Amino acid sequence: MKATQFLISTLKEAPADAEVVSHKLMTRAGMIKKLGAGIYNYMPMGLRVIRKVEAIVREEMNRAGGIEVTMPVVQPAELWQETGRFEKMGPELLRIQDRHGRDFIVQPTSEEVVTDIARQEFKSYKQLPKNLYQIQTKFRDERRPRFGLMRGREFIMKDAYSFDKNRDTAQISYQTMREAYKRIFDRFGLQYRAVRADSGAIGGDLSEEFQVIASTGEDAIVYCPNSDYAANIEKAESLAPTQARPAAAQAMAKVSTPGNATCEAVAEQLGLPLSQTVKSLVLATDTLNDKGEVVKTQVWLLLLRGDHEMNEIKVGKVEGLAGFRFASVPEIEDHFGAKPGYLGPIGLKQPVKIVVDRDVAVMADWVCGANEEDFHITGVNFGRDLPEPELVADLRNVVAGDQSPDGLGELAIERGIEIGHVFYLGTKYSQAMNATFLGDNGKPQHFEMGCYGIGVTRLPAAAIEQNHDERGIIWPDAIAPFTVVVCPIGLGRSELVKTEAEKLYNELLALGVDVILDDRDERPGAMLADWELIGVPHRVVLGDRGLKEGQVEYQHRRDTEATKLATTEVLSHLKSRLGL
Amino acid sequence: MKATQFLISTLKEAPADAEVVSHKLMTRAGMIKKLGAGIYNYMPMGLRVIRKVEAIVREEMNRAGGIEVTMPVVQPAELWQETGRFEKMGPELLRIQDRHGRDFIVQPTSEEVVTDIARQEFKSYKQLPKNLYQIQTKFRDERRPRFGLMRGREFIMKDAYSFDKNRDTAQISYQTMREAYKRIFDRFGLQYRAVRADSGAIGGDLSEEFQVIASTGEDAIVYCPNSDYAANIEKAESLAPTQARPAAAQAMAKVSTPGNATCEAVAEQLGLPLSQTVKSLVLATDTLNDKGEVVKTQVWLLLLRGDHEMNEIKVGKVEGLAGFRFASVPEIEDHFGAKPGYLGPIGLKQPVKIVVDRDVAVMADWVCGANEEDFHITGVNFGRDLPEPELVADLRNVVAGDQSPDGLGELAIERGIEIGHVFYLGTKYSQAMNATFLGDNGKPQHFEMGCYGIGVTRLPAAAIEQNHDERGIIWPDAIAPFTVVVCPIGLGRSELVKTEAEKLYNELLALGVDVILDDRDERPGAMLADWELIGVPHRVVLGDRGLKEGQVEYQHRRDTEATKLATTEVLSHLKSRLGL
Repeated sequence: MKATQFLISTLKEAPADAEVVSHKLMTRAGMIKKLGAGIYNYMPMGLRVIRKVEAIVREEMNRAGGIEVTMPVVQPAELWQETGRFEKMGPELLRIQDRHGRDFIVQPTSEEVVTDIARQEFKSYKQLPKNLYQIQTKFRDERRPRFGLMRGREFIMKDAYSFDKNRDTAQISYQTMREAYKRIFDRFGLQYRAVRADSGAIGGDLSEEFQVIASTGEDAIVYCPNSDYAANIEKAESLAPTQARPAAAQAMAKVSTPGNATCEAVAEQLGLPLSQTVKSLVLATDTLNDKGEVVKTQVWLLLLRGDHEMNEIKVGKVEGLAGFRFASVPEIEDHFGAKPGYLGPIGLKQPVKIVVDRDVAVMADWVCGANEEDFHITGVNFGRDLPEPELVADLRNVVAGDQSPDGLGELAIERGIEIGHVFYLGTKYSQAMNATFLGDNGKPQHFEMGCYGIGVTRLPAAAIEQNHDERGIIWPDAIAPFTVVVCPIGLGRSELVKTEAEKLYNELLALGVDVILDDRDERPGAMLADWELIGVPHRVVLGDRGLKEGQVEYQHRRDTEATKLATTEVLSHLKSRLGL
Repeated sequence: MKATQFLISTLKEAPADAEVVSHKLMTRAGMIKKLGAGIYNYMPMGLRVIRKVEAIVREEMNRAGGIEVTMPVVQPAELWQETGRFEKMGPELLRIQDRHGRDFIVQPTSEEVVTDIARQEFKSYKQLPKNLYQIQTKFRDERRPRFGLMRGREFIMKDAYSFDKNRDTAQISYQTMREAYKRIFDRFGLQYRAVRADSGAIGGDLSEEFQVIASTGEDAIVYCPNSDYAANIEKAESLAPTQARPAAAQAMAKVSTPGNATCEAVAEQLGLPLSQTVKSLVLATDTLNDKGEVVKTQVWLLLLRGDHEMNEIKVGKVEGLAGFRFASVPEIEDHFGAKPGYLGPIGLKQPVKIVVDRDVAVMADWVCGANEEDFHITGVNFGRDLPEPELVADLRNVVAGDQSPDGLGELAIERGIEIGHVFYLGTKYSQAMNATFLGDNGKPQHFEMGCYGIGVTRLPAAAIEQNHDERGIIWPDAIAPFTVVVCPIGLGRSELVKTEAEKLYNELLALGVDVILDDRDERPGAMLADWELIGVPHRVVLGDRGLKEGQVEYQHRRDTEATKLATTEVLSHLKSRLGL
């Protein structure tokens, strides 16, 4: 490709609404152009990256036995009504009526349609297993689309669906996809981690996320550096403490803590470790009647260590707490006689249900609010100052330093961006849609299904979050818009530069290298800045003076300086850098 | 590819709603699966064809300087309101509201968005010409979707848009695309014709359709076998007759024609050539007031030769007839005093405006209706029995045997399916959206635009309409789902068959041939019928008995019989057939 025959369109400034670096850089590098909230044109430079992502995904899906189909973007509502998702999915599902007033949706995913295909196509267990996939435009009407391609409304997703005759072969299909995903993400040249998205309990449903490691990621990932244990913090199990509760050593005492409404502030005032404080979180659960009216409200008090964070998923699994909400300030004042910041389990105005985190249950001499503004209590002990806890549960996010559930060391935490998900669905959809095949026992059986997604347009954004510097993007070779850029300096003034640049360009083309020749005759500063912003990994600069001395300059996008190479060796150098 | 790892799903019966052969065969061959009216899943076998079409289109678009982008499927209404198409397009445009109640559309085409890109990206004439294209899902809410992929609602289209600094370079861009289209359709291996979609008048706007020739096509194409003149019959100009009107030879006479309400019936009864009769078509035009109410209606009588068909586009261009409609029976009876079938220009109850086709204007002694049921008049002559015509115009479709407008012979007519369109748009969109660049005169100028479409998913259907027989599809090599199928007979019973089939399969793979090995171990009859239905062009059948004699059978899909080949020469035979 020659630059003058392409569309290179870089910007000095990022758009005002760009909050994350990938959004800023993709816009500045002319890779995407906003059309509406969460809706982008994929511009030529960005589309090249997307196509490379698609090609790698397609190749590995085919290698793993996937069969490509394309399901419609606009889908009739009927199938979605069969599974109930037409109603359940809420406003994220874009609904349309056609000219005849019939309901349609724009696909956010395609479980319904693919299950409909399966129930028509796969009549016998002999046809199984099968894996159907598509790389297709999706739409989710996010309430707050943002971060460019990271959380768009329209996006491209690869979604695959496996159909198996039983749970055992379904696990094999799952593992096959998992391995394919590892090959795919390896080929992308990204640092990533496959993390458990389920509770990690043995026998739990299989579900793993593929997370691209990036400090700007939205997800916290817990992992064990000594093993392959990794989980989304939302789902990561913390081990029960092994130590016994120490004996009480202090008497209970009310202390004045004016204005110190957080555990951190109280610990600092008292000169105690934060782990000696206990935070009180007040939740509520409502009982509704047939008409959806609240007929009864239960207030709950959760006790967590001051240095721990509540995990909403774990809390929601405590018996009675499904569908909990945070209590209102009037509800809190009604039960505790105090406002948030000074709450505790002692001296309640009205009874509440108390749930104690496992780590709190083994504490002695702890500090909590006194249920009185500007006062806390120190030296609190279970069994003495309040009853032994009845309800003890895992309520908290794991923290760095916790033991890994596999016993192989301490956990560490890093941040990531979810770009893939493998999920064992079981018979959820096949039962809802009565999708069956004739089993080897001669009876109709429901398909065992799995689903497997990769965010094709999100991936370039995640790659940038992981690979950039102050000058711009640094693409891994495999998904760079171009692998090599040839930059002739003073093209219009030097026949030598022109000839040598064309020669190198043609030699690289002949080798099958994805090379662009920047024949725009731009000023050197602007030209090189463009390519650093765009992030092409390999660059060769040719200038008249250098060429007269038989030299050109090579620079990898990660190098801080250019390397002078003899014109005679530049090709072999590039071949070795590109692994050719 | 091995058949057991793919999805082969043939049907004995075509679906009841399939009216055309391509719809029947694509469904029976398992290439498409209906999801809703005009909405299809592209199944694995069909998707392979579509991907090959896309690849050829993309390659030739790139070769012609096109730059690929992708514009969103779901587009905000604002740009469509700028050009007025949001309102104008009517119910064919699928409109959506998002969760915030904002208006969106599903793209039927992308002039607005691409013009918006151009006005932001192309600031100076120095950046021009540019051609942006996409291969993307489109949706048109057809009132009556039918014929499978031929007239679907959701479809894939390649749409390209050229931007030029002036009309001269725009013509070059247009010609470049026209040449690219010829290369594309040549590569598809289809018989096609580039036909004028405009009036053919010199200086008229440039617009050509690419029509795949097929007897089942919806469009009639007029062409001159001795030249490159070709036009859609809708737009094909008929030459003015060169002969003078003969002198009147007959007296006018009223004849009884009971029940003969057509020119054909009257001509037969009277033993006259159909070309001696004149048909009377009654139209009406309404004048509306500001409120859209009809305040005046003008009734028109069109006189055409009995063997000619009215051309609505030409009629609409006659002064005063833009927006015409056919008159109602009461309107006809009001003015003619008779009902349709017996109408004529003589003896009207109320005056009408008469428009005479050029070929009628030179007739003498003609036959028309008597404005009385069951009666016609013979020997009618202008100037004697009725006034000389005031309004004479080209009102008719050309017919086979008419002179070609280029004077190079007689016209012929064949039927075609439109699969591509190149269109010079001028500044229609750039003016509506005020899309300008800085011209070489230093002033803002509107882009000169062209648009160029190819129906990517319609093309396979058109290919089938042109290439099929009673056994199924006959794909041209370039877009066949597989180029070669290797059919081992009795795979499970003969180790020799298994080994030789695998060997040939692997040899073909190594040559880069798109080959499928049918390892399903089906009965020979069913297996071969499947591949004849699917239409793979080259087939090799290996059986145990033949192999023991050192022979296999080759058959091209168009051959009536198989050719016996020595196992040693099958590969070289295939290479020569495939041009390798």
